[in-house]
Amino acid sequence: MGFLVYSLRQRVSVSQYIARRYYTSDITAKAMVYSDYGQPSQVLRMHSFKLPALTADTVHVKFLASPINPADVNMIQGAYPIKPMMQKLGDSELAVGGNEGVAEVIAVGDQVKNLKVGDQVVMAKSGYGTWRTHAAGLASDFQLLPKIEVPLIQKATMTVNPCTAYRMLKDFVKLNPGDYVIQNGGNSAVGQAVIQIAKAWGLNTINVVRNRPELDQLVNELEEIGATHVITDEELGSHEMRKRIKSWVGDKPPLLGLNCVGGKSATEMARYLGTNGQYVTYGAMSKSPLTLPASLLIFKNISFHGFWVSKWAEIHKPEERYAMFEDVMELMKQGKLREPKWTKVEFEQEAMKKAVDLGISGFSKGKQVVMF
Amino acid sequence: MGFLVYSLRQRVSVSQYIARRYYTSDITAKAMVYSDYGQPSQVLRMHSFKLPALTADTVHVKFLASPINPADVNMIQGAYPIKPMMQKLGDSELAVGGNEGVAEVIAVGDQVKNLKVGDQVVMAKSGYGTWRTHAAGLASDFQLLPKIEVPLIQKATMTVNPCTAYRMLKDFVKLNPGDYVIQNGGNSAVGQAVIQIAKAWGLNTINVVRNRPELDQLVNELEEIGATHVITDEELGSHEMRKRIKSWVGDKPPLLGLNCVGGKSATEMARYLGTNGQYVTYGAMSKSPLTLPASLLIFKNISFHGFWVSKWAEIHKPEERYAMFEDVMELMKQGKLREPKWTKVEFEQEAMKKAVDLGISGFSKGKQVVMF
Repeated sequence: MGFLVYSLRQRVSVSQYIARRYYTSDITAKAMVYSDYGQPSQVLRMHSFKLPALTADTVHVKFLASPINPADVNMIQGAYPIKPMMQKLGDSELAVGGNEGVAEVIAVGDQVKNLKVGDQVVMAKSGYGTWRTHAAGLASDFQLLPKIEVPLIQKATMTVNPCTAYRMLKDFVKLNPGDYVIQNGGNSAVGQAVIQIAKAWGLNTINVVRNRPELDQLVNELEEIGATHVITDEELGSHEMRKRIKSWVGDKPPLLGLNCVGGKSATEMARYLGTNGQYVTYGAMSKSPLTLPASLLIFKNISFHGFWVSKWAEIHKPEERYAMFEDVMELMKQGKLREPKWTKVEFEQEAMKKAVDLGISGFSKGKQVVMF
Repeated sequence: MGFLVYSLRQRVSVSQYIARRYYTSDITAKAMVYSDYGQPSQVLRMHSFKLPALTADTVHVKFLASPINPADVNMIQGAYPIKPMMQKLGDSELAVGGNEGVAEVIAVGDQVKNLKVGDQVVMAKSGYGTWRTHAAGLASDFQLLPKIEVPLIQKATMTVNPCTAYRMLKDFVKLNPGDYVIQNGGNSAVGQAVIQIAKAWGLNTINVVRNRPELDQLVNELEEIGATHVITDEELGSHEMRKRIKSWVGDKPPLLGLNCVGGKSATEMARYLGTNGQYVTYGAMSKSPLTLPASLLIFKNISFHGFWVSKWAEIHKPEERYAMFEDVMELMKQGKLREPKWTKVEFEQEAMKKAVDLGISGFSKGKQVVMF
């Protein structure tokens, strides 16, 4: 927070003054753009344009790393509730793909108070576009990252998955060390962040995963990052599993359930919550709706909510988001929240199209991240 | 509240003193009892017993009127999450049917501070049994009614239906005059109370009812008690209805939905809620579960809750319940919350069995109320 106070006072160091005074932007930027919704590989193309000159209330940034997330694909398809921001890039009004990423400030206008050259930033909200080498935007389009030493890949992939996990563990139930949380999609990116943050906070997790041939290996991997228990969706409704979970939780059943799957097993999972439990849906990987017996609502008083980190960022103050970044990056620095599995994508038209296609089919090995 | 303060100080008037001093209970009480769960007409029987002598911390009450509610039947069948209280009535340990009703205090023990002879009371919680001429119980088994002049039938049927409507309108969203509420089961007892209380508070209601031959008559009846709009479940998902509802609510869609039906039309109803809406389920008349598309949870941020008035009474202070009674009885006194349709039931074994059977089949004309 010390830094924020510093920036707000708008003290300008000598080096900053010189940087402002003598910065002349003559940068040819490249961005992966689209002008119509459609299949990403058909509508996406690489576009080069001259970065507009710096003005008093804008900043110039260069991107360092930007992942390809499932929501990015949905947005290009026009199937996402947030629409991309149309921007004048050279002669054309275009949308830029990508919503997450980390960038470095390379120039700041005279009236910009909260950012300076060399700062690392993430996007203030979704829709701006992060698959680009550079951007010239309002200072308010970006949010400063805390100066905590963590690998670039962690910064580039922090605002969606780890922040979703962090908020869901924090905002719906007051949990105390030793309490249980139950979640499905335990090996998803958010699921793994949930396991690790829960572990760091002294919480226990019951993690539901789909049954598969190499189940033992997955169980080992999740236990290795801190999962208390790993079970399969097929076991979920069985009498045997009810007894086992009862033996784990005793008279303190989980009061928080996290669901990114939907369908029958998501209903079964809700039955394990205790009275007054909170059940949070943040995805629907099975593409099936959630079916709720009235007794869970009326007699067990379980409430069912949704969580969407983009909306959260939109309606909360930057200060709150900054405080979350500090917490999450501290966990990363301490090795309690590990780098996700990832593969590097070249920022080049055909490589990008191929990567987005892989993102749709789900056959990519880990998170695909564009390194600029 | 003046009366409560008076009682707590335990001033005892001369007439109270005489009443206590010279009260000798020699009362033969009758109760509709059961000792095993089962079909009500098979397990219920009329039982006579001598009312136990008054002790320092007990009161004697005589019942004035007790309705037959659906939950009473479920409880006798053993299909209700609250179990009846077993009581020694004469030589036998028995459960007494009925959960709602109004009684008059006829004697109070020396250490009872908050009740006096002549007070009218309702039950503090479910499970005690109200199909009985008299009861000898702890003062804490009963709750004082405010001294507001309303017909007996209103007092006897207030704690379940009007109180459910009152709490649901009050506890889930801050509503302002002119705001819309949408509910199904609009002509149920709770539904009618919702219409009237909403009207009294300046709220608009969209009321969903099942389509039926004599629909016009029902629409007239509901509009007559204050319904803003009445529509049928069949119209609910149609394009035409979406346009009509949009024309009614403009840019202020309902933020509160009340559901006692479940199934497909309950899902359709949820789609009319605005962003951040709250959807409260208090029944499942269709016996179908509630199916929720993930988008309603995640992108519209609608939360789904249950409401159960018995649980509410159990976990809230008597003072809060008393304040609700004052509000509800004031509305009744002002004619803003009308007496439900009801038919009188004689407190006699065969008449009671027949009435409970009618309660199960749903063929009764209005609420059946035992008048003692």
